[in-house]
Amino acid sequence: METTTTIATGKIILGIDPGTNFLGYGVISVSGQQITLLSLGTIDLSKLETHQDKLKRIYERISYLMTEYKPHECSIEAPFQGKNVQSMLKLGRAQGVAMAAIINHGVEVHEYAPRKIKQSVTGNGNASKEQVAAMLQQLLKFTELPRYQDATDGLAVAVCHFFQNRHITTASPSSKVKKAAKGWGDFVKANPDRVK
Amino acid sequence: METTTTIATGKIILGIDPGTNFLGYGVISVSGQQITLLSLGTIDLSKLETHQDKLKRIYERISYLMTEYKPHECSIEAPFQGKNVQSMLKLGRAQGVAMAAIINHGVEVHEYAPRKIKQSVTGNGNASKEQVAAMLQQLLKFTELPRYQDATDGLAVAVCHFFQNRHITTASPSSKVKKAAKGWGDFVKANPDRVK
Repeated sequence: METTTTIATGKIILGIDPGTNFLGYGVISVSGQQITLLSLGTIDLSKLETHQDKLKRIYERISYLMTEYKPHECSIEAPFQGKNVQSMLKLGRAQGVAMAAIINHGVEVHEYAPRKIKQSVTGNGNASKEQVAAMLQQLLKFTELPRYQDATDGLAVAVCHFFQNRHITTASPSSKVKKAAKGWGDFVKANPDRVK
Repeated sequence: METTTTIATGKIILGIDPGTNFLGYGVISVSGQQITLLSLGTIDLSKLETHQDKLKRIYERISYLMTEYKPHECSIEAPFQGKNVQSMLKLGRAQGVAMAAIINHGVEVHEYAPRKIKQSVTGNGNASKEQVAAMLQQLLKFTELPRYQDATDGLAVAVCHFFQNRHITTASPSSKVKKAAKGWGDFVKANPDRVK
């Protein structure tokens, strides 16, 4: 079955896994149904003294990535539950600052739950971080694993966004993203010639 | 006792009370020990459909205030407890986006807990919103109360920052903010000629 993709050839995707100690990111470029690794890394926030210094660093570094790679699409890992209100407030701030740096460049942010990302990359929503990293290595053909696993976590968010959107049919690049046919009814509608 | 102030004459302070439905703000200018109201208002987010639209609006409007009033000091109300993790994540994001818009203009953000703000403005940490608004009206001599109380809440954050810092002694404008002498030891150190 042939499909057109919104994530077309030449598009760059930045994926971010924002944390309050380490922020992982990955940048990929799309070529048809293939993706190529452009960059992956970790922003180390653990040594910064104040929470505000961390927010500042996140803003500066994400702004740099936006300028350097000029991504067309950005996605972040967005957990919706946490241990306590205090840590969620801090996480929310880190996410907010990262999102602002993206919004500032006129790019929309897509959010994915951790389970969805694992499911999308490995086929298993309960996959371990190691399994996610191994699958990414295979997909993107890099041999050395980065020092911190947060980097592959960030990369997974970018790859998830690609997987979630490559089968999308759109009328024009500016139109709203539509979900691909998933049910039988949708399939019949989209492929009348293939139904006997 | 004479004191020099870091919040010197001519300085502009922006105060923000970030919420996920309404964001209140106030802008004041400092003239010696006096403050003048430049602006106060509410950014209405309640009609925006998605959480991300709200974040985008916050970023745009705070960026606008930064460009329009060029504040030297910014302060936000930062509650450290809330009902549930979900609402704290959203609040954290709203705070983070507002802080990023400020950081983007090279200005530092000061945080105050709600109780501290009420205490600073009215002398009572448990003051009602109405009492805070009434005190601000008296201080800043405005007659009409804004439509939404979030505006006076935002203004209170700016006034709190002024009250908290006007007695500060600093060596030079570029040096780090230092707390004013509070204990006897500090007083002796700062005023050796006044101790017999």
